[in-house]
Amino acid sequence: MGTLVGKVVIAQGGGPTAVINQSLVGAVLESRKFPQITKVYGAVNGVRGIINEDFLDLTMETTNNLEKVAITPGAGLLSTRDKPDVEYCKEIFRVLQAHDVRYFFYIGGNDSADTVRIVNEQAESVNYEFRAIHIPKTVDNDLVINDHTPGFPSAARFVAQSIMGANLDNRALPGVYIAVIMGRHAGFLTAASSLAKKYEDDGPHLIYIPEHPFDTEEFIREVDSVYKKLGRCIIAVSEGICDKDGTPIVSKLMSCVEKDAHGNVQLSGTGALGDLLADMIKEKLNIKRVRSDTYGYLQRSFMDCVSNVDAQEAREVGEKAAQFAIWWNIDGSIVIKRKANYSVDYELVNLADVAGKTKTMPADFYDLATKNVTDKFYLYGRPLLGASFPQPHRIRAPRVAKILNKTH
Amino acid sequence: MGTLVGKVVIAQGGGPTAVINQSLVGAVLESRKFPQITKVYGAVNGVRGIINEDFLDLTMETTNNLEKVAITPGAGLLSTRDKPDVEYCKEIFRVLQAHDVRYFFYIGGNDSADTVRIVNEQAESVNYEFRAIHIPKTVDNDLVINDHTPGFPSAARFVAQSIMGANLDNRALPGVYIAVIMGRHAGFLTAASSLAKKYEDDGPHLIYIPEHPFDTEEFIREVDSVYKKLGRCIIAVSEGICDKDGTPIVSKLMSCVEKDAHGNVQLSGTGALGDLLADMIKEKLNIKRVRSDTYGYLQRSFMDCVSNVDAQEAREVGEKAAQFAIWWNIDGSIVIKRKANYSVDYELVNLADVAGKTKTMPADFYDLATKNVTDKFYLYGRPLLGASFPQPHRIRAPRVAKILNKTH
Repeated sequence: MGTLVGKVVIAQGGGPTAVINQSLVGAVLESRKFPQITKVYGAVNGVRGIINEDFLDLTMETTNNLEKVAITPGAGLLSTRDKPDVEYCKEIFRVLQAHDVRYFFYIGGNDSADTVRIVNEQAESVNYEFRAIHIPKTVDNDLVINDHTPGFPSAARFVAQSIMGANLDNRALPGVYIAVIMGRHAGFLTAASSLAKKYEDDGPHLIYIPEHPFDTEEFIREVDSVYKKLGRCIIAVSEGICDKDGTPIVSKLMSCVEKDAHGNVQLSGTGALGDLLADMIKEKLNIKRVRSDTYGYLQRSFMDCVSNVDAQEAREVGEKAAQFAIWWNIDGSIVIKRKANYSVDYELVNLADVAGKTKTMPADFYDLATKNVTDKFYLYGRPLLGASFPQPHRIRAPRVAKILNKTH
Repeated sequence: MGTLVGKVVIAQGGGPTAVINQSLVGAVLESRKFPQITKVYGAVNGVRGIINEDFLDLTMETTNNLEKVAITPGAGLLSTRDKPDVEYCKEIFRVLQAHDVRYFFYIGGNDSADTVRIVNEQAESVNYEFRAIHIPKTVDNDLVINDHTPGFPSAARFVAQSIMGANLDNRALPGVYIAVIMGRHAGFLTAASSLAKKYEDDGPHLIYIPEHPFDTEEFIREVDSVYKKLGRCIIAVSEGICDKDGTPIVSKLMSCVEKDAHGNVQLSGTGALGDLLADMIKEKLNIKRVRSDTYGYLQRSFMDCVSNVDAQEAREVGEKAAQFAIWWNIDGSIVIKRKANYSVDYELVNLADVAGKTKTMPADFYDLATKNVTDKFYLYGRPLLGASFPQPHRIRAPRVAKILNKTH
């Protein structure tokens, strides 16, 4: 066992997820077991809470309440969008040092990993004995080296179930249905819309991800083709889709159709992209019933749609952070590795290997010709959804012979 | 027991819900028990399936599969937006008579009740022995006489949980959050956003329903007031809100307004209203982080967020339809009556008493001064959400004393 005596500070950064509190609680409870840990502090509002010395004493929190917080979505310690530069990181380190903090765990995406890396460099530069661990989190699933990241599986479960419901609804009252799904650069979550497919004609029939340029004319042709074949069409599209010049479609369409200006290019928290695509389909294909839903913040915060696989893994990456830092006395970023079908293991890699880098969907997960995912993606995604994934059923009764046999 | 021998036809109309198939299966399984029932047919796509003689023979469906269909959202027999006039109803009756149908069960809203009423009049006018029952269904909860209608409680559960998640998210990363919720004339579903409130500062902080004219200037003042007090604001708004002249707020934005066969403006399947309100707040209050989510079709089709109370009641109204028609040999509309806190009973009322009528929120469920629901609404709504409604938890650890105590 390591012998570095001092406090732990833990914080949460970036967008909350359904399971980010599992990681928090995993790290807190594991840290509280070690005699050399003098206190476990939680920084309120991420790194901003550190520079403001806004700490909660988590050694004074009951295990029972921590377990309840663990199953609550959202960031229990609250979050921040601050992206610290070197000066900001120096300030973080100054506060941590003043409080005799020796262990810093930061739960977040690749920006958070970079913050951990810079703060750790500050400690090294003054020979302050200090352990810093980045704990992975992001619904976008875009952290390199990781097979997947905590938060993504539960968001994927929500998206898959949402599209399952949209399928049932759209089959009962046919038309074109567009689901706009989170994902600025990586199409994983949009691709997850395919994971609930059961019947042959189930949607999504077309999937558009940010990894490939979006061509509006091709899009219209593809929707037309599906609609002519099935009498309906379900489309899953990433909020971050761009044209071949890298211009987000949401801003491009807004300039070419007559609509009120929606201000800055904002991807989440607006229905603009879905509405613009719907208007285009109505206009160009003359289809009347075209609907769009933007899944928005529900994707990352819905309490009753959590993948148990995700919850367990999120808990474990938190626990592992404490173990690597306190038992092993080393720094790094926790990564999830997949072992066969399906189990995972956790490794610690260099902070610089994860910091600031973005992973996109592997090419063999997506078929550009059919605008759909491949079997490889199904094998990848299905185990992540967790247990008790619901199954829709259809009536299979035979048709009755007509008597009047009129044509209406 | 009644002795009217013949076939049953059952159909589903209007927007699907999470539990409409429970009613279908309740009516089918109960009907199949009676020896005088020669066949149980399901009409595909509601009343349109009847005039097209598009029937499935539900006596050839397994009980096992019916039970699986029962827990599947969406209309298992598919649906229609057709609103039959008298000629259309005559055609319905002609087909039913040709197939020796003696029992007609139609699951739907107040329009469907009216269809049942007219078809029944056709049968009476030619002395054709015929039983016709309307089975209630609507997420809007706007059927008169009913305490509430099947489909609403599950939609309410979804909305309440969505706002619970939005609360957690918005607390972690503060700003203004607008949820646009289904409800053309009745504010019940939007009001249900309040049912998951747990902590004192939990949203929704402001609720706007179609029963009261929406005043944009008052709205801006109210948002400003909450935001100044809490540093954030969660708003729940019905898609159907109108100004004092009865003009839908959404149509002020749209250049081309889509209307359905009922003459209704398209409210769902677009994020326009939420975006309009968000733009207004950004502009008038200069608040940067303003987001809107439109809950759209997820509200009525999400398989893993069903109220068990709703599922059971939906099942029972289907069963009761068969019992009233076949045992008692009478026509009418099934209604749900509340007995104390909380139990229900079912009654049969005249079709004309329900047909074409719309219920709105009782005045004492809503406080116009605070733009929030009353305790009376809580008492009304909470039992409907069903068992195992999740509970969020917050960290309660004490704050740590500052050492550096700088001001940033």
